[in-house]
Amino acid sequence: MQVTIGHLGPTGTYAEMAALTFQTWLQADRDQASVLVAYPTIAQTLQAVAQNQVDLAIVPVENSVEGGVTMTMDTLWQLDQLHIQHALTIPIHHALISCAQQLSEIQTVYSHPQALAQCQHWLATHLPQAQAQPTNSTTEALTTLSQHPTIGAIASQRAAELYQLPILACPINDYPDNQTRFLVLSREDSPGGAYTSLAFSIAANRPGSLLKMLQIFADREINLSRIESRPSKRSMGDYLFFLDLEADARDPITQAALRALMAQAETVKLFGSYDLKTYTEASK
Amino acid sequence: MQVTIGHLGPTGTYAEMAALTFQTWLQADRDQASVLVAYPTIAQTLQAVAQNQVDLAIVPVENSVEGGVTMTMDTLWQLDQLHIQHALTIPIHHALISCAQQLSEIQTVYSHPQALAQCQHWLATHLPQAQAQPTNSTTEALTTLSQHPTIGAIASQRAAELYQLPILACPINDYPDNQTRFLVLSREDSPGGAYTSLAFSIAANRPGSLLKMLQIFADREINLSRIESRPSKRSMGDYLFFLDLEADARDPITQAALRALMAQAETVKLFGSYDLKTYTEASK
Repeated sequence: MQVTIGHLGPTGTYAEMAALTFQTWLQADRDQASVLVAYPTIAQTLQAVAQNQVDLAIVPVENSVEGGVTMTMDTLWQLDQLHIQHALTIPIHHALISCAQQLSEIQTVYSHPQALAQCQHWLATHLPQAQAQPTNSTTEALTTLSQHPTIGAIASQRAAELYQLPILACPINDYPDNQTRFLVLSREDSPGGAYTSLAFSIAANRPGSLLKMLQIFADREINLSRIESRPSKRSMGDYLFFLDLEADARDPITQAALRALMAQAETVKLFGSYDLKTYTEASK
Repeated sequence: MQVTIGHLGPTGTYAEMAALTFQTWLQADRDQASVLVAYPTIAQTLQAVAQNQVDLAIVPVENSVEGGVTMTMDTLWQLDQLHIQHALTIPIHHALISCAQQLSEIQTVYSHPQALAQCQHWLATHLPQAQAQPTNSTTEALTTLSQHPTIGAIASQRAAELYQLPILACPINDYPDNQTRFLVLSREDSPGGAYTSLAFSIAANRPGSLLKMLQIFADREINLSRIESRPSKRSMGDYLFFLDLEADARDPITQAALRALMAQAETVKLFGSYDLKTYTEASK
Protein backbone atom coordinates (compact mmCIF):
# COMPACT_ATOMS: atom_id res chain seq x y z
CA MET A 1 0.00 0.00 0.00
CA GLN A 2 1.14 3.51 -0.74
CA VAL A 3 1.86 5.91 2.11
CA THR A 4 0.89 9.56 1.73
CA ILE A 5 3.47 12.30 2.44
CA GLY A 6 2.34 15.88 3.09
CA HIS A 7 4.73 18.74 2.23
CA LEU A 8 4.76 22.47 1.67
CA GLY A 9 3.87 23.14 -1.98
CA PRO A 10 3.47 24.03 -4.72
CA THR A 11 5.57 22.01 -7.16
CA GLY A 12 9.14 23.21 -7.63
CA THR A 13 9.76 24.31 -4.01
CA TYR A 14 12.71 23.07 -1.96
CA ALA A 15 10.22 21.37 0.39
CA GLU A 16 8.93 19.32 -2.54
CA MET A 17 12.54 18.53 -3.48
CA ALA A 18 13.13 17.21 0.05
CA ALA A 19 9.90 15.19 -0.18
CA LEU A 20 11.06 13.68 -3.50
CA THR A 21 14.44 12.82 -1.96
CA PHE A 22 12.70 11.09 0.94
CA GLN A 23 10.31 9.32 -1.47
CA THR A 24 13.26 7.97 -3.49
CA TRP A 25 14.88 6.68 -0.28
CA LEU A 26 11.62 5.07 0.90
CA GLN A 27 11.30 3.20 -2.41
CA ALA A 28 14.96 2.13 -2.64
CA ASP A 29 15.62 1.31 1.00
CA ARG A 30 12.23 0.19 2.29
CA ASP A 31 10.53 -0.93 -0.95
CA GLN A 32 7.70 1.40 0.07
CA ALA A 33 5.71 3.27 -2.59
CA SER A 34 4.38 6.72 -1.69
CA VAL A 35 2.47 9.71 -3.06
CA LEU A 36 3.10 13.38 -2.29
CA VAL A 37 0.36 15.80 -1.16
CA ALA A 38 1.10 19.56 -1.26
CA TYR A 39 -0.22 21.95 1.42
CA PRO A 40 -0.13 25.78 1.34
CA THR A 41 1.57 26.30 4.74
CA ILE A 42 3.87 24.44 7.16
CA ALA A 43 1.18 24.57 9.87
CA GLN A 44 -1.38 22.95 7.55
CA THR A 45 1.17 20.28 6.55
CA LEU A 46 1.70 19.31 10.19
CA GLN A 47 -2.00 19.49 11.06
CA ALA A 48 -2.75 17.19 8.10
CA VAL A 49 -0.75 14.36 9.67
CA ALA A 50 -2.08 15.12 13.19
CA GLN A 51 -5.62 14.88 11.79
CA ASN A 52 -4.95 11.63 9.94
CA GLN A 53 -5.32 13.13 6.44
CA VAL A 54 -1.84 11.91 5.47
CA ASP A 55 0.55 9.33 6.95
CA LEU A 56 3.70 11.46 7.06
CA ALA A 57 4.66 15.13 6.91
CA ILE A 58 8.01 16.52 5.81
CA VAL A 59 8.81 20.07 6.98
CA PRO A 60 11.92 22.30 7.08
CA VAL A 61 13.28 22.85 10.60
CA GLU A 62 16.58 24.68 10.14
CA ASN A 63 18.64 26.38 7.44
CA SER A 64 22.42 26.68 7.84
CA VAL A 65 22.34 30.42 6.99
CA GLU A 66 18.94 31.71 8.11
CA GLY A 67 18.48 29.53 11.21
CA GLY A 68 15.45 27.83 12.72
CA VAL A 69 12.12 27.70 10.91
CA THR A 70 9.94 29.30 13.58
CA MET A 71 6.61 28.11 12.13
CA THR A 72 7.77 24.48 12.39
CA MET A 73 9.04 24.86 15.96
CA ASP A 74 5.95 26.74 17.19
CA THR A 75 3.53 24.27 15.57
CA LEU A 76 5.40 21.23 16.95
CA TRP A 77 5.17 22.73 20.44
CA GLN A 78 1.39 23.22 20.04
CA LEU A 79 0.61 19.81 18.49
CA ASP A 80 1.16 16.97 20.90
CA GLN A 81 0.88 13.80 18.95
CA LEU A 82 3.63 14.01 16.30
CA HIS A 83 6.91 12.08 16.44
CA ILE A 84 10.04 12.44 14.33
CA GLN A 85 10.79 9.40 12.12
CA HIS A 86 13.80 10.70 10.15
CA ALA A 87 15.77 13.86 9.46
CA LEU A 88 17.41 14.76 6.16
CA THR A 89 19.63 17.61 5.08
CA ILE A 90 19.64 18.73 1.45
CA PRO A 91 21.85 21.32 -0.29
CA ILE A 92 20.21 24.58 -1.37
CA HIS A 93 21.45 26.15 -4.62
CA HIS A 94 19.47 29.22 -5.60
CA ALA A 95 19.12 30.34 -9.23
CA LEU A 96 18.09 33.73 -10.59
CA ILE A 97 15.35 33.00 -13.10
CA SER A 98 14.17 35.68 -15.54
CA CYS A 99 13.22 36.31 -19.17
CA ALA A 100 15.34 39.50 -19.15
CA GLN A 101 18.20 39.63 -21.68
CA GLN A 102 20.61 40.92 -19.03
CA LEU A 103 20.72 41.55 -15.29
CA SER A 104 20.52 45.34 -15.63
CA GLU A 105 16.96 45.10 -17.03
CA ILE A 106 15.59 43.52 -13.83
CA GLN A 107 13.70 45.93 -11.58
CA THR A 108 12.02 43.54 -9.11
CA VAL A 109 13.10 40.17 -7.69
CA TYR A 110 10.43 37.90 -6.18
CA SER A 111 10.98 35.02 -3.78
CA HIS A 112 10.24 33.57 -0.35
CA PRO A 113 11.73 35.86 2.37
CA GLN A 114 14.22 33.13 3.43
CA ALA A 115 15.55 32.80 -0.13
CA LEU A 116 15.80 36.61 -0.52
CA ALA A 117 17.75 36.74 2.78
CA GLN A 118 20.08 33.93 1.67
CA CYS A 119 21.00 35.91 -1.50
CA GLN A 120 21.02 39.45 -0.06
CA HIS A 121 24.71 40.18 -0.72
CA TRP A 122 24.56 38.80 -4.26
CA LEU A 123 21.48 40.94 -4.96
CA ALA A 124 23.12 44.09 -3.51
CA THR A 125 26.21 43.49 -5.68
CA HIS A 126 24.71 42.32 -8.98
CA LEU A 127 21.21 43.85 -8.94
CA PRO A 128 21.60 47.07 -6.90
CA GLN A 129 18.73 48.67 -8.86
CA ALA A 130 16.21 45.88 -8.13
CA GLN A 131 13.64 45.85 -5.34
CA ALA A 132 13.18 42.60 -3.41
CA GLN A 133 9.56 41.51 -3.13
CA PRO A 134 8.53 38.67 -0.78
CA THR A 135 6.20 35.83 -1.85
CA ASN A 136 4.64 32.81 -0.11
CA SER A 137 6.93 30.34 -1.88
CA THR A 138 9.97 30.39 -4.16
CA THR A 139 7.78 29.35 -7.11
CA GLU A 140 4.83 31.75 -6.66
CA ALA A 141 6.08 34.38 -9.14
CA LEU A 142 7.31 31.94 -11.81
CA THR A 143 4.07 31.85 -13.82
CA THR A 144 4.23 35.62 -14.43
CA LEU A 145 7.90 35.81 -15.57
CA SER A 146 7.34 35.14 -19.28
CA GLN A 147 4.99 38.15 -19.57
CA HIS A 148 7.26 40.51 -17.59
CA PRO A 149 10.93 40.60 -18.66
CA THR A 150 11.75 43.28 -16.05
CA ILE A 151 11.15 40.88 -13.15
CA GLY A 152 13.18 37.98 -11.80
CA ALA A 153 12.60 35.23 -9.26
CA ILE A 154 14.88 33.22 -6.97
CA ALA A 155 14.09 29.49 -7.00
CA SER A 156 15.79 26.17 -7.64
CA GLN A 157 17.25 25.01 -10.98
CA ARG A 158 14.60 22.30 -10.92
CA ALA A 159 11.85 24.96 -10.70
CA ALA A 160 13.31 26.70 -13.79
CA GLU A 161 13.15 23.38 -15.67
CA LEU A 162 9.59 22.62 -14.51
CA TYR A 163 8.33 26.05 -15.52
CA GLN A 164 10.55 26.10 -18.67
CA LEU A 165 12.21 29.40 -17.81
CA PRO A 166 15.79 30.65 -18.40
CA ILE A 167 18.39 30.83 -15.59
CA LEU A 168 20.48 34.05 -15.65
CA ALA A 169 22.82 33.11 -12.77
CA CYS A 170 23.38 30.08 -10.51
CA PRO A 171 24.27 29.54 -7.72
CA ILE A 172 23.57 32.98 -6.28
CA ASN A 173 23.36 32.08 -2.55
CA ASP A 174 25.81 34.16 -0.47
CA TYR A 175 27.18 31.11 1.35
CA PRO A 176 28.05 28.13 -0.88
CA ASP A 177 27.48 25.66 1.99
CA ASN A 178 23.76 26.47 2.19
CA GLN A 179 21.76 23.51 3.53
CA THR A 180 18.29 22.93 4.95
CA ARG A 181 17.40 20.20 7.40
CA PHE A 182 13.93 18.63 7.14
CA LEU A 183 12.04 16.46 9.62
CA VAL A 184 9.74 13.58 8.67
CA LEU A 185 6.95 13.23 11.23
CA SER A 186 4.06 10.85 11.85
CA ARG A 187 1.61 9.86 14.59
CA GLU A 188 3.59 6.64 15.24
CA ASP A 189 6.35 6.36 17.81
CA SER A 190 9.86 7.32 16.74
CA PRO A 191 12.15 4.50 15.59
CA GLY A 192 15.12 5.58 17.75
CA GLY A 193 18.45 6.80 16.38
CA ALA A 194 21.50 8.97 16.88
CA TYR A 195 19.61 12.23 17.58
CA THR A 196 16.88 13.17 20.05
CA SER A 197 14.84 16.37 19.76
CA LEU A 198 12.86 17.94 22.60
CA ALA A 199 11.63 21.29 23.90
CA PHE A 200 10.92 22.54 27.40
CA SER A 201 9.62 25.56 29.27
CA ILE A 202 10.83 26.80 32.66
CA ALA A 203 8.27 27.86 35.25
CA ALA A 204 10.15 30.55 37.10
CA ASN A 205 11.70 31.97 33.94
CA ARG A 206 15.03 32.23 35.76
CA PRO A 207 18.08 32.05 33.49
CA GLY A 208 19.85 30.04 36.24
CA SER A 209 17.24 27.36 35.49
CA LEU A 210 18.43 27.03 31.90
CA LEU A 211 21.93 26.42 33.18
CA LYS A 212 20.61 23.65 35.48
CA MET A 213 18.83 22.00 32.55
CA LEU A 214 21.97 22.07 30.40
CA GLN A 215 23.99 20.74 33.34
CA ILE A 216 21.75 17.62 33.36
CA PHE A 217 23.10 16.69 29.93
CA ALA A 218 26.70 17.82 30.55
CA ASP A 219 26.89 15.69 33.73
CA ARG A 220 26.04 12.64 31.62
CA GLU A 221 28.39 13.63 28.75
CA ILE A 222 25.47 14.01 26.36
CA ASN A 223 26.37 16.52 23.65
CA LEU A 224 23.87 19.08 22.39
CA SER A 225 24.06 19.67 18.65
CA ARG A 226 21.60 22.58 18.80
CA ILE A 227 19.93 24.90 21.29
CA GLU A 228 17.40 27.49 20.19
CA SER A 229 15.03 29.68 22.18
CA ARG A 230 11.51 30.67 21.12
CA PRO A 231 9.13 33.08 22.87
CA SER A 232 6.60 31.24 25.03
CA LYS A 233 4.14 33.91 23.78
CA ARG A 234 3.01 34.33 27.41
CA SER A 235 5.05 37.46 28.03
CA MET A 236 8.19 39.23 26.81
CA GLY A 237 11.30 37.55 28.20
CA ASP A 238 9.60 34.17 28.76
CA TYR A 239 11.07 31.44 26.54
CA LEU A 240 10.86 27.84 25.41
CA PHE A 241 14.09 26.02 24.61
CA PHE A 242 14.47 23.53 21.76
CA LEU A 243 17.36 21.07 22.11
CA ASP A 244 18.82 18.43 19.81
CA LEU A 245 20.83 15.82 21.72
CA GLU A 246 23.47 13.56 20.20
CA ALA A 247 21.88 10.61 22.00
CA ASP A 248 19.15 7.98 21.66
CA ALA A 249 16.21 8.24 24.08
CA ARG A 250 16.18 4.40 24.32
CA ASP A 251 19.61 4.53 25.99
CA PRO A 252 19.45 4.22 29.83
CA ILE A 253 21.73 7.23 30.41
CA THR A 254 19.60 9.41 28.13
CA GLN A 255 16.47 8.14 29.90
CA ALA A 256 17.94 9.18 33.25
CA ALA A 257 18.71 12.64 31.84
CA LEU A 258 15.18 12.99 30.48
CA ARG A 259 13.70 11.97 33.85
CA ALA A 260 15.85 14.63 35.58
CA LEU A 261 14.74 17.21 33.02
CA MET A 262 11.07 16.32 33.49
CA ALA A 263 11.46 16.71 37.25
CA GLN A 264 12.90 20.22 36.94
CA ALA A 265 11.31 21.81 33.86
CA GLU A 266 7.73 23.11 33.74
CA THR A 267 6.73 21.26 30.56
CA VAL A 268 8.85 18.89 28.45
CA LYS A 269 7.85 17.73 24.97
CA LEU A 270 9.82 14.84 23.52
CA PHE A 271 9.71 14.82 19.72
CA GLY A 272 11.58 11.52 19.40
CA SER A 273 14.86 9.84 18.43
CA TYR A 274 15.83 9.32 14.81
CA ASP A 275 18.72 9.17 12.35
CA LEU A 276 19.90 11.99 10.10
CA LYS A 277 20.81 11.52 6.45
CA THR A 278 22.85 14.23 4.71
CA TYR A 279 22.49 14.47 0.93
CA THR A 280 25.04 16.32 -1.19
CA GLU A 281 22.68 16.33 -4.16
CA ALA A 282 18.90 16.27 -3.81
CA SER A 283 16.67 14.03 -5.93
CA LYS A 284 15.22 15.73 -8.95
CA MET B 1 21.46 71.19 16.75
CA GLN B 2 19.12 68.48 15.58
CA VAL B 3 20.21 64.85 15.66
CA THR B 4 19.22 62.54 12.80
CA ILE B 5 17.54 59.18 13.54
CA GLY B 6 17.43 56.46 10.89
CA HIS B 7 14.59 53.93 10.98
CA LEU B 8 12.88 51.34 8.80
CA GLY B 9 10.25 53.08 6.70
CA PRO B 10 7.98 54.05 5.12
CA THR B 11 5.65 56.24 7.18
CA GLY B 12 3.04 54.36 9.20
CA THR B 13 5.21 51.34 10.12
CA TYR B 14 5.73 50.21 13.73
CA ALA B 15 9.43 51.06 13.36
CA GLU B 16 8.46 54.66 12.60
CA MET B 17 6.13 54.58 15.63
CA ALA B 18 9.05 53.49 17.82
CA ALA B 19 11.20 56.25 16.30
CA LEU B 20 8.47 58.84 17.08
CA THR B 21 8.23 57.52 20.65
CA PHE B 22 12.00 57.88 21.06
CA GLN B 23 11.92 61.33 19.43
CA THR B 24 9.25 62.49 21.91
CA TRP B 25 11.36 61.21 24.83
CA LEU B 26 14.53 62.91 23.47
CA GLN B 27 12.70 66.25 23.27
CA ALA B 28 10.97 65.98 26.68
CA ASP B 29 13.77 64.41 28.69
CA ARG B 30 16.93 65.71 26.99
CA ASP B 31 15.61 68.87 25.34
CA GLN B 32 17.09 67.47 22.13
CA ALA B 33 15.40 68.14 18.77
CA SER B 34 15.65 65.42 16.11
CA VAL B 35 14.57 64.51 12.59
CA LEU B 36 13.65 61.05 11.29
CA VAL B 37 15.13 59.50 8.15
CA ALA B 38 13.43 56.39 6.67
CA TYR B 39 15.43 53.54 5.10
CA PRO B 40 14.05 50.61 3.07
CA THR B 41 15.69 47.77 5.10
CA ILE B 42 17.04 47.12 8.61
CA ALA B 43 20.51 46.45 7.19
CA GLN B 44 20.53 49.81 5.38
CA THR B 45 19.32 51.57 8.56
CA LEU B 46 22.25 50.16 10.56
CA GLN B 47 24.77 50.79 7.77
CA ALA B 48 23.61 54.42 7.59
CA VAL B 49 24.74 55.09 11.16
CA ALA B 50 27.94 53.04 10.71
CA GLN B 51 28.76 55.16 7.63
CA ASN B 52 28.03 58.45 9.39
CA GLN B 53 24.96 59.32 7.29
CA VAL B 54 22.80 59.62 10.43
CA ASP B 55 23.59 60.01 14.15
CA LEU B 56 21.36 57.26 15.49
CA ALA B 57 19.52 54.18 14.22
CA ILE B 58 16.46 52.59 15.79
CA VAL B 59 15.79 48.96 14.84
CA PRO B 60 13.52 46.15 16.12
CA VAL B 61 15.42 43.35 17.90
CA GLU B 62 12.74 41.10 19.39
CA ASN B 63 8.98 40.57 19.33
CA SER B 64 7.24 38.85 22.26
CA VAL B 65 5.38 36.46 19.93
CA GLU B 66 7.57 35.99 16.86
CA GLY B 67 10.97 36.15 18.58
CA GLY B 68 14.31 37.64 17.54
CA VAL B 69 14.65 39.82 14.45
CA THR B 70 17.32 37.88 12.63
CA MET B 71 18.29 40.68 10.22
CA THR B 72 19.13 42.96 13.17
CA MET B 73 21.16 40.32 15.00
CA ASP B 74 23.09 39.22 11.90
CA THR B 75 23.88 42.82 10.85
CA LEU B 76 25.02 43.79 14.38
CA TRP B 77 27.40 40.83 14.39
CA GLN B 78 28.85 41.91 11.01
CA LEU B 79 29.19 45.65 11.80
CA ASP B 80 31.79 46.35 14.48
CA GLN B 81 31.41 49.97 15.41
CA LEU B 82 27.85 50.31 16.71
CA HIS B 83 26.91 50.64 20.40
CA ILE B 84 23.51 50.47 22.08
CA GLN B 85 22.37 53.75 23.65
CA HIS B 86 18.83 52.82 24.78
CA ALA B 87 16.22 50.09 24.43
CA LEU B 88 12.48 50.63 24.28
CA THR B 89 9.52 48.28 24.19
CA ILE B 90 6.28 49.38 22.53
CA PRO B 91 2.91 47.59 22.39
CA ILE B 92 1.81 46.20 19.01
CA HIS B 93 -1.93 46.35 18.21
CA HIS B 94 -2.69 45.17 14.70
CA ALA B 95 -5.74 46.41 12.76
CA LEU B 96 -7.42 44.87 9.72
CA ILE B 97 -7.72 47.69 7.21
CA SER B 98 -9.93 47.34 4.14
CA CYS B 99 -12.52 49.16 2.00
CA ALA B 100 -14.66 45.97 1.94
CA GLN B 101 -18.17 46.28 3.41
CA GLN B 102 -17.75 43.06 5.36
CA LEU B 103 -15.06 40.51 6.18
CA SER B 104 -16.50 37.84 3.86
CA GLU B 105 -15.69 39.98 0.79
CA ILE B 106 -11.93 39.91 1.49
CA GLN B 107 -9.97 37.46 -0.67
CA THR B 108 -6.38 38.53 0.02
CA VAL B 109 -4.69 39.99 3.12
CA TYR B 110 -1.37 41.80 2.67
CA SER B 111 1.20 42.54 5.38
CA HIS B 112 4.78 42.04 6.56
CA PRO B 113 5.40 38.30 7.27
CA GLN B 114 5.86 39.02 11.03
CA ALA B 115 2.45 40.74 11.23
CA LEU B 116 0.77 37.93 9.26
CA ALA B 117 2.32 35.41 11.67
CA GLN B 118 1.16 37.40 14.71
CA CYS B 119 -2.47 37.30 13.44
CA GLN B 120 -2.52 33.76 11.96
CA HIS B 121 -5.20 32.33 14.28
CA TRP B 122 -7.45 35.39 13.88
CA LEU B 123 -7.11 35.13 10.08
CA ALA B 124 -7.86 31.38 10.09
CA THR B 125 -10.98 31.98 12.23
CA HIS B 126 -12.40 35.18 10.72
CA LEU B 127 -11.08 35.13 7.14
CA PRO B 128 -10.74 31.43 6.29
CA GLN B 129 -11.35 32.23 2.60
CA ALA B 130 -8.55 34.79 2.35
CA GLN B 131 -5.01 34.15 1.13
CA ALA B 132 -2.17 35.77 3.10
CA GLN B 133 0.31 37.66 0.92
CA PRO B 134 3.64 38.91 2.32
CA THR B 135 4.94 42.45 1.72
CA ASN B 136 8.12 44.37 2.62
CA SER B 137 6.36 46.48 5.26
CA THR B 138 2.97 46.67 6.97
CA THR B 139 2.11 49.79 4.96
CA GLU B 140 3.21 48.70 1.47
CA ALA B 141 -0.27 47.59 0.31
CA LEU B 142 -2.23 50.51 1.84
CA THR B 143 -2.10 52.74 -1.24
CA THR B 144 -3.92 50.12 -3.35
CA LEU B 145 -6.77 49.36 -0.89
CA SER B 146 -9.20 52.08 -2.02
CA GLN B 147 -9.21 50.70 -5.60
CA HIS B 148 -9.59 47.07 -4.52
CA PRO B 149 -12.35 46.34 -1.97
CA THR B 150 -11.60 42.58 -2.03
CA ILE B 151 -8.22 43.06 -0.38
CA GLY B 152 -7.26 43.88 3.17
CA ALA B 153 -4.03 44.81 4.95
CA ILE B 154 -2.72 44.36 8.50
CA ALA B 155 -1.11 47.52 9.90
CA SER B 156 -1.39 49.88 12.87
CA GLN B 157 -4.40 52.10 13.66
CA ARG B 158 -2.09 55.04 13.08
CA ALA B 159 -1.38 53.79 9.53
CA ALA B 160 -5.13 53.62 8.84
CA GLU B 161 -5.45 57.25 9.96
CA LEU B 162 -2.45 58.41 7.92
CA TYR B 163 -3.72 56.72 4.76
CA GLN B 164 -7.38 57.65 5.58
CA LEU B 165 -8.63 54.07 5.34
CA PRO B 166 -11.35 52.24 7.31
CA ILE B 167 -10.54 49.71 10.07
CA LEU B 168 -12.74 46.58 9.94
CA ALA B 169 -11.38 44.96 13.14
CA CYS B 170 -8.88 45.89 15.86
CA PRO B 171 -6.98 44.47 17.70
CA ILE B 172 -6.57 41.28 15.67
CA ASN B 173 -3.25 40.03 17.10
CA ASP B 174 -3.56 36.48 18.49
CA TYR B 175 -1.82 37.38 21.77
CA PRO B 176 -3.03 40.61 23.44
CA ASP B 177 0.34 41.14 25.13
CA ASN B 178 2.16 41.64 21.82
CA GLN B 179 5.23 43.87 22.22
CA THR B 180 8.33 44.68 20.20
CA ARG B 181 11.65 45.76 21.68
CA PHE B 182 13.75 48.26 19.71
CA LEU B 183 17.42 49.23 20.10
CA VAL B 184 18.80 52.74 19.58
CA LEU B 185 22.39 52.55 18.31
CA SER B 186 25.15 55.01 17.49
CA ARG B 187 28.90 55.11 16.88
CA GLU B 188 29.47 56.57 20.36
CA ASP B 189 30.18 54.47 23.44
CA SER B 190 27.21 53.15 25.40
CA PRO B 191 26.05 55.19 28.38
CA GLY B 192 25.87 52.23 30.79
CA GLY B 193 22.67 50.91 32.34
CA ALA B 194 20.78 47.94 33.72
CA TYR B 195 21.21 45.68 30.67
CA THR B 196 24.25 44.52 28.72
CA SER B 197 24.00 42.88 25.28
CA LEU B 198 26.73 40.80 23.69
CA ALA B 199 27.29 37.92 21.28
CA PHE B 200 29.99 35.29 21.05
CA SER B 201 31.14 32.38 18.91
CA ILE B 202 32.75 29.18 20.14
CA ALA B 203 35.77 27.83 18.25
CA ALA B 204 35.42 24.12 18.83
CA ASN B 205 31.63 24.20 18.41
CA ARG B 206 31.32 21.91 21.40
CA PRO B 207 28.00 22.18 23.27
CA GLY B 208 29.90 21.73 26.56
CA SER B 209 31.54 25.08 25.73
CA LEU B 210 28.19 26.88 25.81
CA LEU B 211 27.60 25.49 29.30
CA LYS B 212 31.02 26.83 30.39
CA MET B 213 30.16 30.28 29.06
CA LEU B 214 26.83 30.35 30.89
CA GLN B 215 28.56 29.11 34.04
CA ILE B 216 30.75 32.24 33.96
CA PHE B 217 27.66 34.38 34.56
CA ALA B 218 25.92 31.98 36.97
CA ASP B 219 29.05 31.83 39.17
CA ARG B 220 28.82 35.61 39.57
CA GLU B 221 25.03 35.62 40.06
CA ILE B 222 24.51 37.59 36.86
CA ASN B 223 21.10 36.80 35.42
CA LEU B 224 20.52 36.35 31.70
CA SER B 225 17.28 37.87 30.44
CA ARG B 226 17.70 36.36 26.98
CA ILE B 227 19.74 33.77 25.11
CA GLU B 228 19.34 33.23 21.41
CA SER B 229 21.38 31.24 18.91
CA ARG B 230 22.04 32.20 15.30
CA PRO B 231 23.84 30.19 12.63
CA SER B 232 27.48 31.28 12.23
CA LYS B 233 26.85 30.70 8.50
CA ARG B 234 30.15 28.79 8.43
CA SER B 235 28.57 25.35 8.52
CA MET B 236 25.40 23.59 9.67
CA GLY B 237 25.44 23.13 13.45
CA ASP B 238 27.91 26.00 14.10
CA TYR B 239 26.29 28.82 16.10
CA LEU B 240 26.70 32.31 17.54
CA PHE B 241 25.00 33.06 20.86
CA PHE B 242 23.36 36.40 21.68
CA LEU B 243 22.99 37.15 25.41
CA ASP B 244 21.30 39.94 27.33
CA LEU B 245 22.66 40.25 30.89
CA GLU B 246 20.84 41.95 33.76
CA ALA B 247 24.06 43.77 34.61
CA ASP B 248 26.08 46.88 33.79
CA ALA B 249 29.41 46.36 32.02
CA ARG B 250 30.89 49.19 34.16
CA ASP B 251 30.39 47.03 37.26
CA PRO B 252 33.60 45.23 38.40
CA ILE B 253 31.89 41.85 38.72
CA THR B 254 30.46 42.13 35.21
CA GLN B 255 33.89 43.18 33.94
CA ALA B 256 35.43 40.07 35.50
CA ALA B 257 32.76 37.90 33.83
CA LEU B 258 33.40 39.55 30.46
CA ARG B 259 37.16 39.00 30.80
CA ALA B 260 36.53 35.30 31.55
CA LEU B 261 34.22 35.07 28.53
CA MET B 262 36.78 36.72 26.25
CA ALA B 263 39.43 34.25 27.44
CA GLN B 264 37.26 31.23 26.59
CA ALA B 265 35.14 32.20 23.59
CA GLU B 266 36.46 32.46 20.03
CA THR B 267 35.09 35.94 19.32
CA VAL B 268 33.11 38.23 21.69
CA LYS B 269 31.25 41.34 20.51
CA LEU B 270 30.07 43.69 23.23
CA PHE B 271 27.12 45.81 22.06
CA GLY B 272 27.02 47.91 25.23
CA SER B 273 25.12 48.64 28.47
CA TYR B 274 21.92 50.67 28.45
CA ASP B 275 18.55 51.16 30.12
CA LEU B 276 15.22 49.79 28.87
CA LYS B 277 12.02 51.84 28.82
CA THR B 278 8.70 50.01 28.45
CA TYR B 279 5.81 51.99 26.95
CA THR B 280 2.23 50.85 27.36
CA GLU B 281 1.06 53.25 24.63
CA ALA B 282 3.33 54.33 21.79
CA SER B 283 3.57 57.95 20.61
CA LYS B 284 1.35 58.75 17.67
